[in-house]
Amino acid sequence: MATHKKIGEREILRSIRAMTARSRTSGIRVGIGDDCAVLTPRAGEELVITTDFSIEDRHFRRNWHEPEAVGHKCLARGLSDVAAMGARPLAVFVSLAVPKEFTTADGKKRAWISRFYDGLLALAAREKVSLAGGDLSESPSFAFADIVVVGAAPKGRALLRSTARDGDILYVTGTLGGAAAELAAIEQDHRPFRGLKLSDSSHPHFFPQPRLATGQALLRRKLATACIDISDGLSVDLLHLCEESDLSAELDASAIPVHPRATLEQALHGGDDYELLFTASPRSRVPRNLGGVTISAIGRMLSRKAGKRVTLVTGKATRAPLLPQGWQHF
Amino acid sequence: MATHKKIGEREILRSIRAMTARSRTSGIRVGIGDDCAVLTPRAGEELVITTDFSIEDRHFRRNWHEPEAVGHKCLARGLSDVAAMGARPLAVFVSLAVPKEFTTADGKKRAWISRFYDGLLALAAREKVSLAGGDLSESPSFAFADIVVVGAAPKGRALLRSTARDGDILYVTGTLGGAAAELAAIEQDHRPFRGLKLSDSSHPHFFPQPRLATGQALLRRKLATACIDISDGLSVDLLHLCEESDLSAELDASAIPVHPRATLEQALHGGDDYELLFTASPRSRVPRNLGGVTISAIGRMLSRKAGKRVTLVTGKATRAPLLPQGWQHF
Repeated sequence: MATHKKIGEREILRSIRAMTARSRTSGIRVGIGDDCAVLTPRAGEELVITTDFSIEDRHFRRNWHEPEAVGHKCLARGLSDVAAMGARPLAVFVSLAVPKEFTTADGKKRAWISRFYDGLLALAAREKVSLAGGDLSESPSFAFADIVVVGAAPKGRALLRSTARDGDILYVTGTLGGAAAELAAIEQDHRPFRGLKLSDSSHPHFFPQPRLATGQALLRRKLATACIDISDGLSVDLLHLCEESDLSAELDASAIPVHPRATLEQALHGGDDYELLFTASPRSRVPRNLGGVTISAIGRMLSRKAGKRVTLVTGKATRAPLLPQGWQHF
Repeated sequence: MATHKKIGEREILRSIRAMTARSRTSGIRVGIGDDCAVLTPRAGEELVITTDFSIEDRHFRRNWHEPEAVGHKCLARGLSDVAAMGARPLAVFVSLAVPKEFTTADGKKRAWISRFYDGLLALAAREKVSLAGGDLSESPSFAFADIVVVGAAPKGRALLRSTARDGDILYVTGTLGGAAAELAAIEQDHRPFRGLKLSDSSHPHFFPQPRLATGQALLRRKLATACIDISDGLSVDLLHLCEESDLSAELDASAIPVHPRATLEQALHGGDDYELLFTASPRSRVPRNLGGVTISAIGRMLSRKAGKRVTLVTGKATRAPLLPQGWQHF
């Protein structure tokens, strides 16, 4: 970990360290200020770790996204991976590189970098996870961040993609396509979306809500046989689940919980929803609401059929292979 | 963790996954291929975690550094932080963003990205640590990587910067200033340094050698009271050690092990050496060689003197405050 003055802004590092010292979570013995952070998991726990880039002009744009929203989403993406494992988040590391002008106040507004941390740390506080380290650097041009989230789960019990079974029912949390629909609206005209700074679940593109409580409940109650988060879109992430479990799947188009502002196409192929897609035995009683979000049964897992991973069933007799449509950020 | 086709190079991800599957270390239950990697530390262990950026034109240049050397140094920087904690490395995560042209073969040469992983994985194999995940993305222009290294140490025993004591002797591993001297030579004329692909300790700027064996021996034998790696230069990193331990220090200029090609100035202020700077009780018998490198006593820790953290002693009666000179990469 770098704690030295790389960016010519020692004050920024001091203020980040002060912010995080106040909110130290149990499980972090040493946070920012040493070569490494030191984490102390509980006895009998395994650790889960994820990393994800957020890159300007690829994942966000400086004139579309307020820095607070960039910070929120940067962390939300990592937390969503931890949610998909059924784990509780333990510590967060952020490596951030920004152009020089992002480190100084802009008129009456605080510096971009401070506002980025505001958004990120607000979500961290809400989810009771601490910033334990990272890196800070000047970037030659565009801004980029790499988020690392470390979580903990009882040993041997983290939810995986590879453990779905033939005959399992497929479930999804919340609604799908909302982020893609909002992105389409921004592409038409981004001005109505200016100034969104505070986490608000009615703006799924700007403020995705990681399903941590649901993931932890799925693990604790032994409901899920496999789980993945939908970051690239249902068609792509279901394909990953099928590949890793070596199964096929059948989706019921009419059962997919489409976001009120989205189309079925956006629900199937839009990315950035950060809902959980999981499988459970047909004998399990999966509640309709778990961890504060609705749960919908949307299909089932089948034994592997050569070259046919996912089939979409529309109406009584119409079946068509569902091809993955990789979601591009812009 | 992202495992999807972001860069249009599914083959790259497949080959990385295949490379890492072969060399799976104990302690990694799930590596690349799920939302998170799953690590299983041994009972009674705490985990140390570090992250470090390597950014093109800041930490390396495409016409100065072969991709294998960039991959080596990217990992070496992270491993050096783990060495400074006295920990054994457990798992590595690499988030890498490269411009499109870095993903395709260049004439007879393999793609930049493949050669970057060659260098990184060669060092990983040598140090018996596995790549357990990361992210891969296309960059709008320059290349950048964020390395995450996770290590393990007996609970409560990781070496810190903040635990040096008044009267402790200051020690350093190896020699200092070699990387700065080599960088100065490259700046004069980089052509003689072309084609350096294989880890070679005679090129300290290109192939820093993390002092893992030494760090682990310092912890195991309870020799060090505090430890830090010298990434920014002795004057800067000794200041960090003093600040975190709330002490001052006195350096004996004649005792500093200057690299044969370097000046005293380069040994004091040059960065990128990745040697260990540690303190030990004057009653401890510190060997002259530990983990395959020489150990030199270079000064001592003193109680804090207001505004005077580090004093350089040259000759019998000459004492001058040593001001930190932050090392800039280029």
